[in-house]
Amino acid sequence: MPAPVPTPATYAASIDSVREAMRRIAPHAHRTPVMSCSTISRLANLDLRFKCENFQKVGAFKFRGACNAVFKLNEADARRGVVTHSSGNHAQALALAARLRGIPAHIVMPRNAPSVKREAVEGYGGIVYPCEPTVADREATADRVCRDTGGTLIPPYNHPDVIAGQGTISVELLEQCPELQAIVVPIGGGGMISGVAIAAKAIRPSIRIIAAEPMNADDAARSKSAGSIQPISNATTIADGLRTSLGDLTFPVVRDLVDEVATVSEEEIVRAMRLVFERAKLVIEPSAAVGVAVALSKRSRVLTSLDGPVGVVLCGGNVDLDALPWTKR
Amino acid sequence: MPAPVPTPATYAASIDSVREAMRRIAPHAHRTPVMSCSTISRLANLDLRFKCENFQKVGAFKFRGACNAVFKLNEADARRGVVTHSSGNHAQALALAARLRGIPAHIVMPRNAPSVKREAVEGYGGIVYPCEPTVADREATADRVCRDTGGTLIPPYNHPDVIAGQGTISVELLEQCPELQAIVVPIGGGGMISGVAIAAKAIRPSIRIIAAEPMNADDAARSKSAGSIQPISNATTIADGLRTSLGDLTFPVVRDLVDEVATVSEEEIVRAMRLVFERAKLVIEPSAAVGVAVALSKRSRVLTSLDGPVGVVLCGGNVDLDALPWTKR
Repeated sequence: MPAPVPTPATYAASIDSVREAMRRIAPHAHRTPVMSCSTISRLANLDLRFKCENFQKVGAFKFRGACNAVFKLNEADARRGVVTHSSGNHAQALALAARLRGIPAHIVMPRNAPSVKREAVEGYGGIVYPCEPTVADREATADRVCRDTGGTLIPPYNHPDVIAGQGTISVELLEQCPELQAIVVPIGGGGMISGVAIAAKAIRPSIRIIAAEPMNADDAARSKSAGSIQPISNATTIADGLRTSLGDLTFPVVRDLVDEVATVSEEEIVRAMRLVFERAKLVIEPSAAVGVAVALSKRSRVLTSLDGPVGVVLCGGNVDLDALPWTKR
Repeated sequence: MPAPVPTPATYAASIDSVREAMRRIAPHAHRTPVMSCSTISRLANLDLRFKCENFQKVGAFKFRGACNAVFKLNEADARRGVVTHSSGNHAQALALAARLRGIPAHIVMPRNAPSVKREAVEGYGGIVYPCEPTVADREATADRVCRDTGGTLIPPYNHPDVIAGQGTISVELLEQCPELQAIVVPIGGGGMISGVAIAAKAIRPSIRIIAAEPMNADDAARSKSAGSIQPISNATTIADGLRTSLGDLTFPVVRDLVDEVATVSEEEIVRAMRLVFERAKLVIEPSAAVGVAVALSKRSRVLTSLDGPVGVVLCGGNVDLDALPWTKR
């Protein structure tokens, strides 16, 4: 017997907190455009609408959640700054959001992170704290920085304000394409899809939400099947933004509001990424290609049952242009 | 003593023929978006507005001119098809425009053209006629194909209907950004800048038009200085769309209506192209990067004298993703 679906109040965010986030981030975040590409739609046999978060500030949707979290802080907390451990888009997003509010951002980053990532964070005014490349030292360092500075920890996805910020994608997308039948959302820690699902289903209850996940990091697929969080470690997918596992705030949303988790191979991800460069003329990162790859795979049961337009969130465009995956052979 | 500026009627196109082209191509061509990138604007110290012809059908502005020429043919001429010699974007554009009208496109192409270019034309339904890679054989083959088929030759730039079609860029751009002070346009054969200049100066007489040209293919700069066409042969610029020389229909427009020809080095072109990929998240071809490179060079006298927004036409996005210029070392 399926468990009863909890009321929205059970989740870490709600349509109300998403709408608040919308008002909060509007002066700072881009309202990103929606684009389509007739060739890719034809190949997928779907009317695809790309929500271009690669054009978002810092080149990724992460700015929405970070911006919401930073601007929601009260004045006293804000003055002490924000802290996170990340070497990815969340680190840059938090650094920029903090700079826009005029407060410090303390970013804990493994010593072996590429120097370009460190420089990007510093370029946005973030203060980098190198740590050993282990979970234990990363968390210990972040704890120490929080204690030393009195700053507020803003994790990359398992946080109500971050989830609400990512939900603003749905509000915009359903204003831009009110007739969408489904939204395909890449899934890593589940922050983006949680916000997107909560907001989209509140605005348009019939909409279907499909999580797009690399086969090589299929913790969301396994967690949804098992009905409990099945963490993954050392996932080896090119989609570096999707290597993380679901958190305790995001899993319930994936369990209840996500209609399907569809997985794709590394080859499918690279092929989709190249196709988007080649035909849509958009620079996207591998994580963004995962959603496109799901649409192209024709293996999603939900997608094959639809006859209307489908949104695909192109979650970011931060890619190493010196090592594009199809030239690395 | 400067020569008197001829009346617009002297040129191969006019604002009236451009507006006709606008109506003719509207059902087929994309109204391309205008985008901006705060980092690139900051680096150029200009408020840059990118007219994204990389999102145009076939990935380049060439579709506008080809579409106008094909749909302007009378029924009897159209039935016999169109002919051109090109291995570039014009070939694909003409093939697609012809397919949309349901008529044959005969494309003469050097035997040594990359197979991907041949396949692209055939993918749009064009019939490819291989020729020797010499100007003489290319023209002889095209003549023969015209005689054999009774088709109409549509050259890539030196043609009134092609020039009028390219002018639709200005009509759209000045609707999208009415306050533009200048437009930067890459220049090869001069078809695009002729249409853009004729239409833009008719709509907004104070607007300045800047031609952007590779130093390694500076025939337009030299022609404008000399007051007569100074052809170039065997130009070796990475901006393969800009290797051609001005024609007798485009030179008078460049002479009279283009305010400045600014040139950039190969290094500047590659750097600008990479910057657009990296920060604007747009896939552009080297020819499109030439306009951005001019804006970044700060050597344009016209641009440095302005204090309002500047349009830059990103003319196309058809680039070999296996050999991006910064990875080819």
